[in-house]
Order: sequence, then C-alpha cells, then structure tokens
Amino acid sequence: MLTIRRLSIEDARTLIAGARAKAEEIGVPMCIAIADESGQLIAFERMDGGKITSTIIAQDKAYTAAGAKRTTESYGSASQPGSPAYGINSAIGGRLMVVAGGLPVIVDGDVVGAIGLSSGTPAQDTQCAQAGIDHFLASRA
Amino acid sequence: MLTIRRLSIEDARTLIAGARAKAEEIGVPMCIAIADESGQLIAFERMDGGKITSTIIAQDKAYTAAGAKRTTESYGSASQPGSPAYGINSAIGGRLMVVAGGLPVIVDGDVVGAIGLSSGTPAQDTQCAQAGIDHFLASRA
Amino acid sequence: MLTIRRLSIEDARTLIAGARAKAEEIGVPMCIAIADESGQLIAFERMDGGKITSTIIAQDKAYTAAGAKRTTESYGSASQPGSPAYGINSAIGGRLMVVAGGLPVIVDGDVVGAIGLSSGTPAQDTQCAQAGIDHFLASRA
Amino acid sequence: MLTIRRLSIEDARTLIAGARAKAEEIGVPMCIAIADESGQLIAFERMDGGKITSTIIAQDKAYTAAGAKRTTESYGSASQPGSPAYGINSAIGGRLMVVAGGLPVIVDGDVVGAIGLSSGTPAQDTQCAQAGIDHFLASRA
Repeated sequence: MLTIRRLSIEDARTLIAGARAKAEEIGVPMCIAIADESGQLIAFERMDGGKITSTIIAQDKAYTAAGAKRTTESYGSASQPGSPAYGINSAIGGRLMVVAGGLPVIVDGDVVGAIGLSSGTPAQDTQCAQAGIDHFLASRA
Repeated sequence: MLTIRRLSIEDARTLIAGARAKAEEIGVPMCIAIADESGQLIAFERMDGGKITSTIIAQDKAYTAAGAKRTTESYGSASQPGSPAYGINSAIGGRLMVVAGGLPVIVDGDVVGAIGLSSGTPAQDTQCAQAGIDHFLASRA
Repeated sequence: MLTIRRLSIEDARTLIAGARAKAEEIGVPMCIAIADESGQLIAFERMDGGKITSTIIAQDKAYTAAGAKRTTESYGSASQPGSPAYGINSAIGGRLMVVAGGLPVIVDGDVVGAIGLSSGTPAQDTQCAQAGIDHFLASRA
Repeated sequence: MLTIRRLSIEDARTLIAGARAKAEEIGVPMCIAIADESGQLIAFERMDGGKITSTIIAQDKAYTAAGAKRTTESYGSASQPGSPAYGINSAIGGRLMVVAGGLPVIVDGDVVGAIGLSSGTPAQDTQCAQAGIDHFLASRA
C-alpha cells in the first residue's frame, strides 16, 4: 500500500487566491484550475472576463503538470521540432499541454497537485500560477 | 482466411518483466503497456511512481507500434515540419504517437504485438522497451 | 494537505492473481483491470480468449468503482427507468459503468482502489472481482 | 504465442456480396461493414441510398459482434431494464451496439470476424447480415 500526499480543498483555495491576486494586479482576468496529484480537478475559478477556451486549457495545464510532474513550459521546449518529445502536444486527446502556465505544486519533494492558468500570454499565465504557489507555500511557513 | 500469430498473456508478462528490470536498473518508474498485433491491450503495469499521463501514452505507443508495424520513433523523424508525415501525431484522436518508446515485437518477420513505455525520457523509454523485447526473445531461444 | 492510501503495483498484482485464479476455475477468460483510488489504471491483464470489447469495459468498471466509491452493480439498480440515477450510464463519455463487475477495494474503511472484470456474465465478472479482493485481503492478514 | 484465424479481404468481399444481394432483393440500400476478429474494419460498402448515420452504426455493430463474440441482438435482450447488462449500450463511447444487425462470423468454432448491417429495420439488417454469412459459408463448402 502506498501513502500519498494531496492538496485539500483549503489548499486549493489558497493557491487560487494567490494566483487571482496577481491576475488582478496585472489586470488580466484568468481561468485558474487546481488539480490533485492524480490530475483530477479540485477547484476552478473563471474570473469575470476570463476566456471560454481557457476553461478547458487551464484544467488541462493543471492535469499535465500534476500527471507528468513537470511544468507545461518544459514540454514546450522538449517538443520543439527536432526535439525528443516532438508531437506529444496531441497526446491524450490533446489534453497534454505544452504551453506555459501549468506548474506542479511540490511539498517536501512530493508533487501534491498542480495549478494551471490560462487567458493571458503564456508568460502571464506562468507568472500568476507561480504567484499562487508562492502564496500557498508562504501560508504553510 | 488468414492465420495470424499473436502474443499470449504469458508472452506479455515476459515482455513486461524485461522492461521493468531495466527500468529498475536505471531507476525510472515506468508505465509499461503490451498490445497484440491489432493494437489491443493485453497487459499493463504502472510501476509505483510512474506518471499518470503515461498510463495513456504508454498504451498509445504500443497501439501505434503494433498497428503501424514500426517504431514510434520512426514516426518522429517522418513527421518533422516539411516531412511527408507532418501532422500525423494528432491522427486517430491523438492516439498515433510519434514520440520514441513504442516498439513492434517481431517474431520470424511477423509483427505479433508491441510494447510501449512512458515516464522517462524518450531515450529511456526506448531503452526499457528494447530490454523487454530482448528478454522476450531470449526466453524463446 | 490530505493523506491518501493507495494500492501499490504489488497490491494490484495480488488482486489480479486472485481474480485470475477464479476465472480459470470457472473456465471464463477475463479482462482484469486494477485502478488506483483516483480511477487511474495501475495494472491490466487480458487472459487468452478475453473479449476485445472488455479491454475497455473492465478498465471503465474499475474507474467507476474507484471514482464513485461504490460497486458498478449498485449503479445498475439506481439507474433503472424511473430511478434517480436513470441515464447516468452514458455519463463521462460512457465511461460510467452500471453493469456489475466493478468493485471498490476497501482497506480500513478507505477506498484505496478498485477492480474491474469483464468478459463473462455480469455475475461471473463480479464473482471473479470479489475473488481478487478476497485474495488481496487474505494476503494482508 | 497464439495462432489466430481471421477473415481475409477476399472473405470480406464474399460476405458483402451475400449481404448486398439480399439487400437488393428486399429493396433496402444498406451500409455493410466487415470487421476482423479484433473488431478492426476490413471492408465497408454503402450502397447508393444507404443512410449516413449507418456508416458509423454498421461499423460499430461489426466491432461489437467481433469483439464480444456474440450478436448485437443478444445484447438487446440482455440489456433491457432489469436485465444484467442494462446500460451497456453506452459503453466504449457508445460503440457497443445492442441493436440487431451485427453477427459474428464463426468458422470451425472460432470467431474469425463479424458483419454489421445498418439502414433498414433491425430485422432487415439481421436478415441481410445472415445472408452474407450464409453466402460466405456456402462459398467455403
């Protein structure tokens, strides 16, 4: 039997709060998704004005970051033409996201879930996702 | 009427054992899938720590290698921008994998099934898939 | 943060062994799937002669039993015409199975995974799934 | 290693010819699909006037009859409300057909493929599917 650590809904709210604060600060309404360590959705918020397409993309970024235990951005470089993971972006029915904005949430070395943002530029999505994680880790300190 | 040779479940277990031994040796927990010559799943194991996204990807690598009778890696080069199979990675709902790690299992010149690995780098996935085939072929000698 | 207990690959093998022994005893080649507590596949075996359609159905029975923390058979009665869950069989792209043969695996009151069988009658599928659980629990005693 | 017997494309043409002759005789333009023993398509013909929806349904009837080694009609009765396979019609993304018109093709006790018809009433579909099998078996005598 294995013992797994996983984000709670309270943790998910904290992650969203941190990401949302940054999104408001930069003035970009975001879709924010939190997945557990198995890639299953725990919480989701679409800020007023967040993009419809991003409701799916944010979830899939969180799914990918949790399931593959790496940032979606890292897949972006690994899947460029000529690179080893080229073509992986269409895997799992297209759910495997290689666009930046999905980050695993790591506690004591374990991936316990992930956060996925979408609606801004990939750089903005990543910035807000990181802000969510920073806020979450600070709340645990 | 055609006569087809196909991996048995016993063969599938042997293939998995060989791949798993190599995965343990290199210290990368893998998802390992064995498909029959029609691409249908015969056996699957997710080693403790194998990636969630890889549960699907390993199966689809085995499906692709069996169904197309070639390595998924060969599709990787054939599907680069400007190459004839460009864009084929999203075919069949994204099941057609062009990332290395899926190998057909060939006996006496016939494709009798395939093995698909995922969770490591594509090179590690291929290394462990090949180890599975080597172990299987050695067991038949 | 939550702490979750989950079947290991070793546990999954034990579950499969118990189910397979019963399947051999009753002479029905089965597809046997083990999912973790999040419904993600851990291990799968299609016995020689197991049905092709059952490769999917067995996995989806395990997914349903783990994810919904109940037997697929219980959904069968709850989804009869006029019953509250009528029509739920087509939910999640048809993955939610209401045919008997999927059982949650429960340890100390926690659902730690599930087993799904398919290829026989629903009663046979359930019988073999239960045999898998009995064998697993006995191995822990 | 297993040895499997499977319909050839020549066999598939013979099955279609027999089904088409009956469809012409009863004046119902049909969609006719032949699958191998793994449920994969070997041949397909839509007679002029055959229904568009039936291009999919005929294939799925053949897939189901081959994969589950039984007539789709038998699933129709087994999946009535209150019966053990109730709700199975939505399995495998809805590909599992429980409407009559899909028959396994059996040679010397082995399922070597299947034929699926659609466009008429289920009774007409079955009649023409059976005519295809009769013609095929007669051609082998």
